Amino acid sequence: MNPGKSKNLIYADRIAASPVREEALDVMIPLLGEGFGNPQSVHMRGQKAAEVLGIAREQAAALVGAKPEEVVFTATGSEANNMAIKGIARGRREKSNRIVVSAIEHLSVLKPAMTLKKEGFELVTLPVDGDGLVMMDSLKEALEGGAALVSITQASTEIGTIEPIAELAALCREADVPVHTDAWGTAGNIAIDLETLNVHALTLAGQNFGGPPGAAALVIRRGVPLRPIVEGGVQERNLRAGQENIPAIAGMGAAAELAAGELDRRARDLAPIRDALISRLPAAIESVVVTGHPNRRLPNHASFCIEYIEGEAMLLLLDTRGIMASSGSACTSRALKGSHVLDALGLDAATAQGSIVFSLGMENSMEDIDFLISELQPIVSRLREMSPLYKKRK
Amino acid sequence: MNPGKSKNLIYADRIAASPVREEALDVMIPLLGEGFGNPQSVHMRGQKAAEVLGIAREQAAALVGAKPEEVVFTATGSEANNMAIKGIARGRREKSNRIVVSAIEHLSVLKPAMTLKKEGFELVTLPVDGDGLVMMDSLKEALEGGAALVSITQASTEIGTIEPIAELAALCREADVPVHTDAWGTAGNIAIDLETLNVHALTLAGQNFGGPPGAAALVIRRGVPLRPIVEGGVQERNLRAGQENIPAIAGMGAAAELAAGELDRRARDLAPIRDALISRLPAAIESVVVTGHPNRRLPNHASFCIEYIEGEAMLLLLDTRGIMASSGSACTSRALKGSHVLDALGLDAATAQGSIVFSLGMENSMEDIDFLISELQPIVSRLREMSPLYKKRK
Repeated sequence: MNPGKSKNLIYADRIAASPVREEALDVMIPLLGEGFGNPQSVHMRGQKAAEVLGIAREQAAALVGAKPEEVVFTATGSEANNMAIKGIARGRREKSNRIVVSAIEHLSVLKPAMTLKKEGFELVTLPVDGDGLVMMDSLKEALEGGAALVSITQASTEIGTIEPIAELAALCREADVPVHTDAWGTAGNIAIDLETLNVHALTLAGQNFGGPPGAAALVIRRGVPLRPIVEGGVQERNLRAGQENIPAIAGMGAAAELAAGELDRRARDLAPIRDALISRLPAAIESVVVTGHPNRRLPNHASFCIEYIEGEAMLLLLDTRGIMASSGSACTSRALKGSHVLDALGLDAATAQGSIVFSLGMENSMEDIDFLISELQPIVSRLREMSPLYKKRK
Repeated sequence: MNPGKSKNLIYADRIAASPVREEALDVMIPLLGEGFGNPQSVHMRGQKAAEVLGIAREQAAALVGAKPEEVVFTATGSEANNMAIKGIARGRREKSNRIVVSAIEHLSVLKPAMTLKKEGFELVTLPVDGDGLVMMDSLKEALEGGAALVSITQASTEIGTIEPIAELAALCREADVPVHTDAWGTAGNIAIDLETLNVHALTLAGQNFGGPPGAAALVIRRGVPLRPIVEGGVQERNLRAGQENIPAIAGMGAAAELAAGELDRRARDLAPIRDALISRLPAAIESVVVTGHPNRRLPNHASFCIEYIEGEAMLLLLDTRGIMASSGSACTSRALKGSHVLDALGLDAATAQGSIVFSLGMENSMEDIDFLISELQPIVSRLREMSPLYKKRK
């Protein structure tokens, strides 16, 4: 499956969705059919399903340097984030009622944090600099007097900036506060080692590295108190009830194993294409702002604000030219709301409206960048001609 | 896929897991590969994914006589139950802090109810009679002074008894209290009409009618307050964040449409096989108790307690003879705990230990019943020979 390559079709929206890798699909399909089973069953089919689950758990753990027993499978990254935020904070409330998150977290971190605020927690939001890096000093300050939990994304998929999680986590460790990081965007994209990051919990999703929808995980160290949000049966060490989605989990495991073996190649092949896009697009089109860090960012991620333009219109016109990209987070792009992430970078609302995010796959090439820029230029010109703001500019 | 038919292999554990129906798999596989997409994306792939989601929503709604916009997709039935219990009760707390559940609910209802109790709710548990029917008078009593929510399963999958939900719901409507019913075991098994049942919320899972793991739904009437448990993006009317599992949801939709057309045939073909098992097994083996209602029960469900025996041992030996069944709930069978459902029927712990549940599929036949009974007889004899309790019996 090569969605970005057929007849000048460029798929640069890997954040929104990716096809399941063939090797993962090969593992999944038999499990949906004759290989079906529930790991809780006592009989043969249950045994086999339990074995499949065990293998996938090892594969997922290995991708991030975790122990298999630290992996709690969920359905989505959002569910894992909700579990981490609400589960750990509520579990540690007697220690502290403060929770600390960065201003550029995904909504599946921010909304649970706001729910906790309504429950009486004090919510501290850490600012970021113009490149999207969380400011160390603000974390230090926030940790004074302790906290129930700190959550900082390893990389916002809106701007691609990779945060210095190990350094931030060291501060939290000193203050004896558990740290969660959302590795949705980074897992399978850059090397991750739980020991080096030194975090207590990490959100992992298979979809970003060629696994199927329906499988994700919260990786959580033993000893971190966690109140489950989906309660019931004994699955996942009593931390996440509900029947395990064995086919999807097996697919995620297979994809994790493949991804682990390809990290070097991703960095080598994708980063130069990303860099070309980041340097050439603002050179080819006037009034373009690169969002996120210029190079400390996801290897497949380039994001911009095209001034005097609305991202939505640009995406629709690009789509008619066979180029698929996104504007902001995949979970809100239809919501047409301003982006809290771009706001945190200090961008004004008008500029932020022109947000466009390209998230590339291994099938994308330097030629795609040529095509993309050559198609985007006339679209931007056309939209600017219609823009009263553009005409009124100084 | 015909898991119950190859060479005297009898799969009678449909409650634990079922293969995905071929027609559903045919819909799913392209969506996992070249047809992938995120409904939130603005571009072509997003549009197509949104269309797929819309069709599945109509199909799922039609199976239970609901409106498409009343369907909130989740990953599992357990998640839908958690949403209903915690979401509605917390959303109506200012009206009443009482929640009412039956004693035979699934753990994904009971555990959230216990969590609410810890949060200060008053938890009322409704008793059932010896056949597993919820007692109308106890509900009447529980509703005095109002309640935030009543939740009664349409049929416990441990005992198969179908509850008189419409009658119970009428009492709740009179008291102006919303009612949730867990239709995990009934949807696709018997005809369900939301209007007739007159409930406010209903849990639906695709796996019980040939849909894939990873797709289920809470069907909820407009106007019923619901606090989401997975918060974040705008998916599912802001009620359940996280990327929709489009392939699984589409598979569930296709399976729902098939199931809707086959309800009559299920009743016609399966009920006689079930009835044969329920009448012949206790005749062939001494000291067998039928659990649940003798005939007001799921058409594919027969359950027993074989006295002086442990269910686990029986299941393992049956498995060696190619017969797969379960003992109690699929979410706890490995947990080796006593069953709260059998306890609620008034069965003593020793009898309850001998629990065995057969949940049949359309491939099962009368001959399977012959085979099953002929294989079970010597297993029971052998296990009873080893049982000190059996030797000491009066």
